[in-house]
Amino acid sequence: MSGLPSHVEIKEEGPREGFQIESGDIPTERKIELIEALAETGLKTIQIVSFVNPKRVPGMADADSVAAGFRPKEGVNYMALWLNDKVFRRALSYDKLYLEGKLTLYASDAFLLRNQNRTQKQQIEAQPELIRLYQEHNVPVRTGFITAAFGCNFEGDVRTAKVVSLVSDLRRVASDHGEALKLIGLADTMAWANPESIKRIVGAVQDANPDIALSLHLHNTRGLGLANAYAGLQMGVRHFDAAVGGLGGCPFGKHRGAAGNIATEDFVLMCHEMGIETGVDLEKLIDCAVLAEEIVGHPLPGAVKTGGSLNNLRARITGENN
Amino acid sequence: MSGLPSHVEIKEEGPREGFQIESGDIPTERKIELIEALAETGLKTIQIVSFVNPKRVPGMADADSVAAGFRPKEGVNYMALWLNDKVFRRALSYDKLYLEGKLTLYASDAFLLRNQNRTQKQQIEAQPELIRLYQEHNVPVRTGFITAAFGCNFEGDVRTAKVVSLVSDLRRVASDHGEALKLIGLADTMAWANPESIKRIVGAVQDANPDIALSLHLHNTRGLGLANAYAGLQMGVRHFDAAVGGLGGCPFGKHRGAAGNIATEDFVLMCHEMGIETGVDLEKLIDCAVLAEEIVGHPLPGAVKTGGSLNNLRARITGENN
Repeated sequence: MSGLPSHVEIKEEGPREGFQIESGDIPTERKIELIEALAETGLKTIQIVSFVNPKRVPGMADADSVAAGFRPKEGVNYMALWLNDKVFRRALSYDKLYLEGKLTLYASDAFLLRNQNRTQKQQIEAQPELIRLYQEHNVPVRTGFITAAFGCNFEGDVRTAKVVSLVSDLRRVASDHGEALKLIGLADTMAWANPESIKRIVGAVQDANPDIALSLHLHNTRGLGLANAYAGLQMGVRHFDAAVGGLGGCPFGKHRGAAGNIATEDFVLMCHEMGIETGVDLEKLIDCAVLAEEIVGHPLPGAVKTGGSLNNLRARITGENN
Repeated sequence: MSGLPSHVEIKEEGPREGFQIESGDIPTERKIELIEALAETGLKTIQIVSFVNPKRVPGMADADSVAAGFRPKEGVNYMALWLNDKVFRRALSYDKLYLEGKLTLYASDAFLLRNQNRTQKQQIEAQPELIRLYQEHNVPVRTGFITAAFGCNFEGDVRTAKVVSLVSDLRRVASDHGEALKLIGLADTMAWANPESIKRIVGAVQDANPDIALSLHLHNTRGLGLANAYAGLQMGVRHFDAAVGGLGGCPFGKHRGAAGNIATEDFVLMCHEMGIETGVDLEKLIDCAVLAEEIVGHPLPGAVKTGGSLNNLRARITGENN
């Protein structure tokens, strides 16, 4: 009935997105409990920690203990994030982790300066050294990532042509150093996207790069996350980042103002209802969302964990009628 | 760039949807405060109360005081809901109210039986008497409404053909009694819709009724409200119900499990960002959402009241650069 993909691949980022903004008082074993429960849902890629400075990010102070402690499930890729070369070396020590070299450019000059203290030119020039580091450690370089691809709190709207040009820069710098990117991630880091800008920017990047897959990393700060995801699906995008329960932010209480990724279970429900396969057991995932909320100890924004799945209702109705 | 409408009309249902589920202890003057603030945002249609049995709905026990007490603003239609003929007569006593006769059918036999203790045949046969009552009091009969048009917790999925057939029944019974419906409302009463089912059912109703406008009443229980609204916009729908702050439900605390309409301010932001006019001042509307949250005294699910508008950020960036 439409050009929607028949299936999507989800990268679950809840444990990393969620726990990094919490204070340091969540026990390591509870983080591991969530990671292990997520691995039982059918999710194939789970980003579990970020290797960062524990003084700046107390919620990730136990990243090494989490990475050392969890029991991996066969067939699941456990990923980690690192923000610079130094902490990357920490990630290298865990055989259980699936390491992937990601090259990142910023669609916002202002945000790049603020975050990395670099100009666009400097950021591009920094990539070859990173590629060599990954090559030295046999870490594949597959993914290019454009931060703030749909707008930025410090710079405003982003021109479509700029995103297309940055993607082209990323692919060129990779290929100049013997790597071919397989996936380009477009991140709506500060929730500036709307369904039409998703279509416009995704469409332009696809037109210029028909040979490469795109992924979307969508924040739900203004409630448009699933509408934007639907627009992405309409453009044929098959890779999405998401965070169980909407971990990574909460519009209430102490997290007022923050807001996380789209909630994995809400996205999975939308996909399943439209006939798009995710490989995920929604009921088990809802249990994980409830668990995540219990672990962080405050409400999380995901809706389906409260609203419930429709298949559960269908099963009950069928049961009553038989 | 798309088939989206250039403008939409919003029926604000927050005061009615929201206060009817609260206990009776919200002061009447605070309800009036919200209604009067909403009228300053540019919203042209505001449903302010429901005339119901105060014993069953304590939150609406002061409906008469609200209707009597608010100061109407020129150019705004203040509407009321009533669930039967008897309470309709209460609504008649307020000149400030814009009364409109609405004819309602249910796409779910099970929900109709549960709610009205009627069969489909009985529900259709009850409409002529209602039409005559409205005619007797010079209340225009403009709108037909299909409850649970996208699915039902008690009956499951709804067949597209059934919705089309019910719309045709409604129009026929109206026209047999001298009335021509101008608008057909399709309600996702229990949040079963997904963007593709919106397109399928809206499309089928449009095909069979090219001469009449449609409106969508969308609940956000499973987080798909704005994705569904976007699908409706893609089908050219120009009339939407919404509730400021997402009033009418809250996934947290004592309201766990309930969930209201799409939040008006989230929908308005999405429209504005896509170049669709609403006639609404988003900043003033956000203030109303914050006010609504303060009045009910618990978090409401709307996102933009916390995430903030993008135009505010754009203005700040422009200011800093000048």
